Amino acid sequence: VGWSPANEGEHVIIEEATVSIKPERIEEFEAAFGHASGVLLEASGCRSVELLRCIESPEEFQIVVGWDTLEDHTVRFRESDVFPRWRALVGGFFTSSPVVRHYQVAQPARR
Amino acid sequence: VGWSPANEGEHVIIEEATVSIKPERIEEFEAAFGHASGVLLEASGCRSVELLRCIESPEEFQIVVGWDTLEDHTVRFRESDVFPRWRALVGGFFTSSPVVRHYQVAQPARR
Repeated sequence: VGWSPANEGEHVIIEEATVSIKPERIEEFEAAFGHASGVLLEASGCRSVELLRCIESPEEFQIVVGWDTLEDHTVRFRESDVFPRWRALVGGFFTSSPVVRHYQVAQPARR
Repeated sequence: VGWSPANEGEHVIIEEATVSIKPERIEEFEAAFGHASGVLLEASGCRSVELLRCIESPEEFQIVVGWDTLEDHTVRFRESDVFPRWRALVGGFFTSSPVVRHYQVAQPARR
């Protein structure tokens, strides 16, 4: 990682995980996600969980997760018992490994 | 577009535009974006504007824009006088064409 935000730890980190779901399993996935998002919110430092569906590629979803720090996701979550519980609920719907990117909020939402 | 959300028009559409910025121009880009986001918010149907910076690829930014409907972005905005004003402020910083995806909120943020 080449860039280390100066204020890391003070602002929320946004994780975007892009996943593809088989068309015939999308309804089942969305129902499972409703439960799984509650499990994910038990993780230390997890602030928010949202599910987006891509309009151009409707089999593609983006799971958007807010974390207090990068390490809350990449270290603590992956070593926690929440991780296997989360993956057991939703991992079986993914047609390949999720593509994950992390973002720092450079300019917060203006409305 | 293969998938047409049943409730389109009632919920916010999320546009994610991924752009790359030359490292030496990032500070200047961020300053310009502060003004440009105000211009973008003048567009009909534009609800929110946020700027994210990728931790894994620090030259990569994501512009996240909330729209009332897909057409507010893809038709009305692109035909409006806001579009050239917006592009004049930020377009020169992009090293290539933005990669744009639109999302429907499948499950709103839980906290």
